[in-house]
Amino acid sequence: MSFEILAADGAARLGRLSTGHGRIETPVFMPVATQASVKALCQDDLAALGARAILANSYHLYLRPGTELIKAAGGLHRFMNYDGMILTDSGGFQVMSLADLRAIDDDGVLFKSHIDGSSHRLTPEKVIDIQSALGSDCWTALDECPPFPASEAQAEAALTRTTRWLEQTAAALERRRQEGARALFFPILQGGFFPALRRRAAEHVAGVPADGIALGGFSVGEPKALTWETLERTTELLAKDKPRYLMGVGTPGDLWEAVSRGVDMLDCVFPTRVARNGQLMTRRGKFNITQSRCRQDHGPIDPDCSCFVCRRYSRAYLAHLFRAKELTALRLLSFHNLRCMADLCAEMRGAIAEGRFKAAWRAFRESQENTGA
Amino acid sequence: MSFEILAADGAARLGRLSTGHGRIETPVFMPVATQASVKALCQDDLAALGARAILANSYHLYLRPGTELIKAAGGLHRFMNYDGMILTDSGGFQVMSLADLRAIDDDGVLFKSHIDGSSHRLTPEKVIDIQSALGSDCWTALDECPPFPASEAQAEAALTRTTRWLEQTAAALERRRQEGARALFFPILQGGFFPALRRRAAEHVAGVPADGIALGGFSVGEPKALTWETLERTTELLAKDKPRYLMGVGTPGDLWEAVSRGVDMLDCVFPTRVARNGQLMTRRGKFNITQSRCRQDHGPIDPDCSCFVCRRYSRAYLAHLFRAKELTALRLLSFHNLRCMADLCAEMRGAIAEGRFKAAWRAFRESQENTGA
Repeated sequence: MSFEILAADGAARLGRLSTGHGRIETPVFMPVATQASVKALCQDDLAALGARAILANSYHLYLRPGTELIKAAGGLHRFMNYDGMILTDSGGFQVMSLADLRAIDDDGVLFKSHIDGSSHRLTPEKVIDIQSALGSDCWTALDECPPFPASEAQAEAALTRTTRWLEQTAAALERRRQEGARALFFPILQGGFFPALRRRAAEHVAGVPADGIALGGFSVGEPKALTWETLERTTELLAKDKPRYLMGVGTPGDLWEAVSRGVDMLDCVFPTRVARNGQLMTRRGKFNITQSRCRQDHGPIDPDCSCFVCRRYSRAYLAHLFRAKELTALRLLSFHNLRCMADLCAEMRGAIAEGRFKAAWRAFRESQENTGA
Repeated sequence: MSFEILAADGAARLGRLSTGHGRIETPVFMPVATQASVKALCQDDLAALGARAILANSYHLYLRPGTELIKAAGGLHRFMNYDGMILTDSGGFQVMSLADLRAIDDDGVLFKSHIDGSSHRLTPEKVIDIQSALGSDCWTALDECPPFPASEAQAEAALTRTTRWLEQTAAALERRRQEGARALFFPILQGGFFPALRRRAAEHVAGVPADGIALGGFSVGEPKALTWETLERTTELLAKDKPRYLMGVGTPGDLWEAVSRGVDMLDCVFPTRVARNGQLMTRRGKFNITQSRCRQDHGPIDPDCSCFVCRRYSRAYLAHLFRAKELTALRLLSFHNLRCMADLCAEMRGAIAEGRFKAAWRAFRESQENTGA
């Protein structure tokens, strides 16, 4: 088995996932390397962050620089020179949200590139081919993510299609495995915010050979209460021995919520995206580097953080760089926020191991209420 | 004496400059930290580059974040967390080129900020006050740089004003020194492209207590032949025992030209500015990362370069990042170009020490003719 559960505390689990590129301690937050680059950072930065797992977007890499080029480079790990685990999404979400979607049917999707308008077709088989060419460590299946809000009929239609695509994906995967492919495989579980549909999806997914379950269809604009309620009712239905990956979530607070409901892996552009807008996370709450009080504050972003940005640079310096539109500000702020997410995951893992997850979560919430960050 | 000449080869000199923040081997190329940041790089990058000397712009820092703030931070070294030598320019060049210049007279200049239109006045004394507050290691004097082309009368008027300002600067400097200031001082020598004016400037500067001479008024759009002819006729007039700093020059080829004429220090935004446009320097000539052949080239920028960018990343990956507008591309390309300049200076120093400067220069020129870079 590629996943071991080392400890549990309530629904929260401490685990270890073995991949083609190392072992990952879970819960883990995976930075997003949309275009084979975690924005503003290089791969030495990922090493310094201890980021042993990242997400890359199949849709983006398929369109640019192209899967064949990456294959010729020896795969995505060699192309970008990263030796940790790479999980690739299916491209389904981007086709629906970024591309000019032309047609969708039981065989796949036809769309126009958001970059140059060129026409492309993705099928379940092609999505496996793309991930195989990329050489990622963990593959996902083409899915249809319903919008929010969606009627139950809409969500059901999307689920039915996702289910059918998953059958085709499983067949394509089986062929690849017979050829020697060793990537892990995570089907994407849809069903919108309808418990009956999520149950149907969970039951179907349980019958497919899978190394873990990706939880899709969240973080699409729904109220947070609905996120957590639906997530909780879904994870309860899943096999305990497989890792659960919640796609596109989230903030530090979201991490606690998700992990408390049995999620093991998460990814989100949030920490780097908000950093590029000046927003910083700390153990005492968040703040924006553009706030006027930062301009004369010669202390670090977070006195409790040991990252190189906090050890080397003051808020006043970073505020100056940000206001002066210096590129370096974007890297330094992104690095700190990702370090904050990594530290948070380490803290959660320690708390689960020691059976004090709830107390640690409470302490986190109280710390964030301090608005003097 | 703060400057030692260790070897000479023709007019080229190998030297060592002692400053408040370490000893600098010359010839040295100083990266430009216009706004207290070498664009796209952080100070760990400067350490990795071995960049022991940088230039910072008094004009920019005076306007933003303001000299008082930097003084409150403990000076520019602590504000930006850089422990090498910092040379500050006088702001004169930026007032003429960037600001909305309102009035110039024998007492100073009145101008409006290019950032917010606020009115400011710089005088020779104030420029010393600014540099004192910044705590830079090497100060320069307010000067008036004539445009190109300028009539001899224009250039003479600018020189006369620069000369008068230098007297006032020297008096202000003397007061600061009596208060304990230990910065080095480099007056700026003007005179346009008129040998008689350059001679007059050199004679005047020779009578002022100075630790080195800054050569201003070059790189203002003149033909290169005129640059080198005027430079050569000027350096011949200068005391041999003081370092010569050629402001705002230049390219790798320019470095050889200048050093062959007795220049010891140079600064220019060229390597980082062109990097942000995709242009890369190599030991085999320059090329642009946007060239289509780079997209499938899995080799490094420069196989003869040992910088971390060349060791870790391929042209194909960098070309992808650049085309995809990933911020990381700008840092990686800037780093490589600055490493190229640092390596070039090291090569020149070795050649001077071994009396083979001309041969090394010839080899450099031949290498650059190879268009297959």
